[in-house]
Amino acid sequence: MTQRLLGEIYRDYIACLNRQDWPTLERFVDDAVVHNNRQLGLRGYRAMLQRNFAEIPDLAFNIDLVICDPPRLASRLCFDCTPRGDFLGVAVNGRRVSFAENVFYEFAESRIVRVWSVIDKAAIEAQLAG
Amino acid sequence: MTQRLLGEIYRDYIACLNRQDWPTLERFVDDAVVHNNRQLGLRGYRAMLQRNFAEIPDLAFNIDLVICDPPRLASRLCFDCTPRGDFLGVAVNGRRVSFAENVFYEFAESRIVRVWSVIDKAAIEAQLAG
Repeated sequence: MTQRLLGEIYRDYIACLNRQDWPTLERFVDDAVVHNNRQLGLRGYRAMLQRNFAEIPDLAFNIDLVICDPPRLASRLCFDCTPRGDFLGVAVNGRRVSFAENVFYEFAESRIVRVWSVIDKAAIEAQLAG
Repeated sequence: MTQRLLGEIYRDYIACLNRQDWPTLERFVDDAVVHNNRQLGLRGYRAMLQRNFAEIPDLAFNIDLVICDPPRLASRLCFDCTPRGDFLGVAVNGRRVSFAENVFYEFAESRIVRVWSVIDKAAIEAQLAG
């Protein structure tokens, strides 16, 4: 897997999320995917994403930065959206917030097998307090 | 700058932090370094780190994962420590917490010029609530 090809696969994965194209997700996510040390599997991973879109109707994934070293890739994702109610335990309640997610992926062949994600909760709280 | 050399420089930087070897920090951090969109500069960056060690006496940086694509590098750092008082606005008050930081760096030559860091605050809160 070349660096360039892995970068392209990753961009296609993010486009798939933004289309909410759930049947295609299996091209990018392994059956046994582990997310933040939880063995979600493809079904659990899809359910997590669907829940995210239900809770944040205007959710969109924007790639700010990609660092690629096959079989691993790190990405900084930026969000500008309006969660309906609570998000990460913060009562956002339909206000607009901007925040980043720094996320690491491990691929096996062309599919994601592990994800280590951290979302900038402190930035969300700071905006709502301001 | 090769991938291998940048990885070595990064490991030397982390060792420098763990030794609290402040005179050597200038080898790794640029005079005009920007941290999470704040223009800290080397002096401000050093002051931030010194404050971290003052507030967390047993602070140690442990590298869990490095993804290197010169001039950028992403690292997952793991911490297991006992902040004295508040940390990230959480009243930790000397309890032991484990958490990760997903952090991205941009280097110019062999020095860090930009940092995008996210610390897993939600994990800290979950441990203290548990």
